[in-house]
Amino acid sequence: MPAPHRLTVREIATLVGGQVEGPADAALTGIAPLDRAGPADLSFLASGRYLQYFQHTSAGAVLLGPEFRTVRGGPASRILVEDPHAALARLVPEWFGAPSATWAVHASARLGRGTRWRGRVAIGTGVQIGTGVELGANCRVDAFATIGDGCRLGDDCHVESHATLEDGTELGRGVRIRRGARVGGPGFGFVPRSGAHERIPPVGRCILHDGVEIGANSTVDRGSVGDTVIGPGTKVDSLVHVGHNVRIGAHCLVMAQVGIAGSTVVEDDVVLAGQAGLAGHLRVGAGARVGAQAGVIGNVAAGDSVSGYPARPHREVLRQAAALKRLAPLVTHLEELARRHDG
Amino acid sequence: MPAPHRLTVREIATLVGGQVEGPADAALTGIAPLDRAGPADLSFLASGRYLQYFQHTSAGAVLLGPEFRTVRGGPASRILVEDPHAALARLVPEWFGAPSATWAVHASARLGRGTRWRGRVAIGTGVQIGTGVELGANCRVDAFATIGDGCRLGDDCHVESHATLEDGTELGRGVRIRRGARVGGPGFGFVPRSGAHERIPPVGRCILHDGVEIGANSTVDRGSVGDTVIGPGTKVDSLVHVGHNVRIGAHCLVMAQVGIAGSTVVEDDVVLAGQAGLAGHLRVGAGARVGAQAGVIGNVAAGDSVSGYPARPHREVLRQAAALKRLAPLVTHLEELARRHDG
Amino acid sequence: MPAPHRLTVREIATLVGGQVEGPADAALTGIAPLDRAGPADLSFLASGRYLQYFQHTSAGAVLLGPEFRTVRGGPASRILVEDPHAALARLVPEWFGAPSATWAVHASARLGRGTRWRGRVAIGTGVQIGTGVELGANCRVDAFATIGDGCRLGDDCHVESHATLEDGTELGRGVRIRRGARVGGPGFGFVPRSGAHERIPPVGRCILHDGVEIGANSTVDRGSVGDTVIGPGTKVDSLVHVGHNVRIGAHCLVMAQVGIAGSTVVEDDVVLAGQAGLAGHLRVGAGARVGAQAGVIGNVAAGDSVSGYPARPHREVLRQAAALKRLAPLVTHLEELARRHDG
Repeated sequence: MPAPHRLTVREIATLVGGQVEGPADAALTGIAPLDRAGPADLSFLASGRYLQYFQHTSAGAVLLGPEFRTVRGGPASRILVEDPHAALARLVPEWFGAPSATWAVHASARLGRGTRWRGRVAIGTGVQIGTGVELGANCRVDAFATIGDGCRLGDDCHVESHATLEDGTELGRGVRIRRGARVGGPGFGFVPRSGAHERIPPVGRCILHDGVEIGANSTVDRGSVGDTVIGPGTKVDSLVHVGHNVRIGAHCLVMAQVGIAGSTVVEDDVVLAGQAGLAGHLRVGAGARVGAQAGVIGNVAAGDSVSGYPARPHREVLRQAAALKRLAPLVTHLEELARRHDG
Repeated sequence: MPAPHRLTVREIATLVGGQVEGPADAALTGIAPLDRAGPADLSFLASGRYLQYFQHTSAGAVLLGPEFRTVRGGPASRILVEDPHAALARLVPEWFGAPSATWAVHASARLGRGTRWRGRVAIGTGVQIGTGVELGANCRVDAFATIGDGCRLGDDCHVESHATLEDGTELGRGVRIRRGARVGGPGFGFVPRSGAHERIPPVGRCILHDGVEIGANSTVDRGSVGDTVIGPGTKVDSLVHVGHNVRIGAHCLVMAQVGIAGSTVVEDDVVLAGQAGLAGHLRVGAGARVGAQAGVIGNVAAGDSVSGYPARPHREVLRQAAALKRLAPLVTHLEELARRHDG
Repeated sequence: MPAPHRLTVREIATLVGGQVEGPADAALTGIAPLDRAGPADLSFLASGRYLQYFQHTSAGAVLLGPEFRTVRGGPASRILVEDPHAALARLVPEWFGAPSATWAVHASARLGRGTRWRGRVAIGTGVQIGTGVELGANCRVDAFATIGDGCRLGDDCHVESHATLEDGTELGRGVRIRRGARVGGPGFGFVPRSGAHERIPPVGRCILHDGVEIGANSTVDRGSVGDTVIGPGTKVDSLVHVGHNVRIGAHCLVMAQVGIAGSTVVEDDVVLAGQAGLAGHLRVGAGARVGAQAGVIGNVAAGDSVSGYPARPHREVLRQAAALKRLAPLVTHLEELARRHDG
């Protein structure tokens, strides 16, 4: 990550609200991991697992959390901060600027009748936009993305390459749809008819509120009997499936490969860890945490942490796993005891 | 969903075979969920969970299942039907017509030597079609889809945008390949050679029979030692993986994120719920139901319902989960009992 | 699979190092599965499950493993080999040649400033390549693939259609990125800021060594605090997710729908079976085998075989499953015994 201009260690410390230890005048030109950084790079130490890299790094300066204040070795220039990750999140946009975009509509893009936009937009190669679409200011739509009829995008949205928004999808401000994500397709709902599965026509839309992100190659179905809704600030990782009529609240984190079946409600601030699955028509209360691979087949109360299949409190899962481990060798004894107890 | 023409409540009831209660002459112009419908919209109530929306909806008329016949409140115009979802499935194509397509080959599409079609086709922007491909009448291939050499598509097939059919794939009539699905790629089979993994060349094809649907971003591998086959009417949801040489029967439902390993046979009318996984070289009998997240590592008899890992009858899973919950606190006691019993 | 030229049974046997039984002079023109092969096709029998097809095949000759030497029926011409799959892997490239490519840059492809290549390359329709990209000799980039700024590809790489390499991704020699795979996107790491989730800027890259394959629609995130690295010869199947900073060793097999969370280390020669999940910050030792759907939440020692959730030695899982099955009916007895033991 080479930066467009140099910053001294002192200037960087000021930008991130940190405290310099050692020389403060070296001019740095980029950021790199400890094991790859050179004398003109800033690096960072956020976990003890990287201490060995720290001791041998050639970085010009290092951002350090408070727990590493007294660590020996490593570069002479240090910037102490509360949280190196948060410092990076603050520093990078200041130093590197927003990623560049070509604010124009590429000649090969196709825009349908009645489509319009406010302010500048960046529409890439081959982009297909349907009829009656509204784009806010500063929207970017990358190469080969397709946007169906009647979609509405707020300001600062970014639809990445190869992504799809199907007809009628609505995005708030600052929504990001990552590469290859499919948003607003019909859900997997069928009724039997003459011995075949016939799709229930989807009447609902897919509505993503401000700041939502949908990860690469994820799929979010439109509503069938209502809308599918994802609340403000919720981040969805890669390869996630969100079924029809699902409602997810604000500021949730939905990790890779999670699946949520139709009509389930996930309240605010919930964390769904990787590969977790939620059956349909459930409610997961605010602030709940669903563990990796958990199989949720009943409601989860607000604030609960569950895991396993069927999902239950995580401590219980671990206690039961330990019990099971100790019980297995006992079974034959126990059967005999039970027989004797019967007899 | 605004319709191209108005229908009265009475006309709608006739189309769906329903019975009107209340005023029958209002002209409606579209369909919307209860919480978003206006006076010119038809809405529907298919589950008690939506009763509160029903009582406050502004819809002009509502389709109701028989269990809601006596429900109070809600719109004055009601249409009673056996199954509101089935009524919608019947109504929507009649009222809205089939989705429109541009029956032409876009100038930017590339068609290989010897490729031909019967009747009209709709080939979108940038579509890449190989050599010797046969397309039936009314086939649609949307923007940026790619179809390899020697593929054959029956009438009324629809390959959506960004989808891929690799060489030699065969589709029956009315097959739908949704956005970003990858059909006919080589499977994950390797032999060791000079210390490396060398792919077993796939000699088989991928054959999807009439009415099959493959969901968004799903992957279906071609056969290695035989063909991969999916039977008529089977519907596959998003992000599903079907391995090489798998054979799936007719009218199955394969839900999101299911994985089926190589050479497994799934007979007719099977339901595989979300995130279920089937190991390779197994047989799942006709009409079986495999629960969400189940891990199937042995054959499943026709008609059985299994869940958990390793997958076993669902009732047994629930009984064992309950037993485990009660047993965990007993383990120390039991170990002591067993010791005494030994001694 | 029709071949460009005929080979006699004897010539085929020589190419694969096999031994002919029966007539050796028939000229064959292609390879097909037993149930579809005709008199001019070679077929193969690698498993007893296909014996019935063998007995009724019309194939002109069949490759057979040593265990089928004495099998009766089937075609008169047989070629006995140690391993029919390995024989196919050797035969197919010799007989069919490498798949053809058009060694040219398509007029619709867009290449950024400073992008250059060594030797011939095949760049397909609509391909988007950023600035400062280096391509080795014989690289293929298929239709609609996108390659970001500063990527480096070794010789003989193949980026298939619709695949994505984000900025700075590095591929060794002979790397294959299959259709729709997304390599080098930012990971799912956030810090809280003003009540919102703010992404930790990814400073690392994604580095795939010689011979790596990434399956269709899989996602591999770039590093945040280091690089994401996949070692030489490792094969990754479809719909797999590899998180940021993950390091995978050499010659691993990662099967469909596996998920690996951030910063986990997988050593050489590990097999991760389908749908397995690895939590973050773990280490899986060399040669370990992680079973299908296993949920790994602790380190796995070199050479261990684990399964279940939480993952533990596979034998233990099966023993516990059996114990659980026998224990469930005993629970009431055992509770009573324990009560008595207390009293």
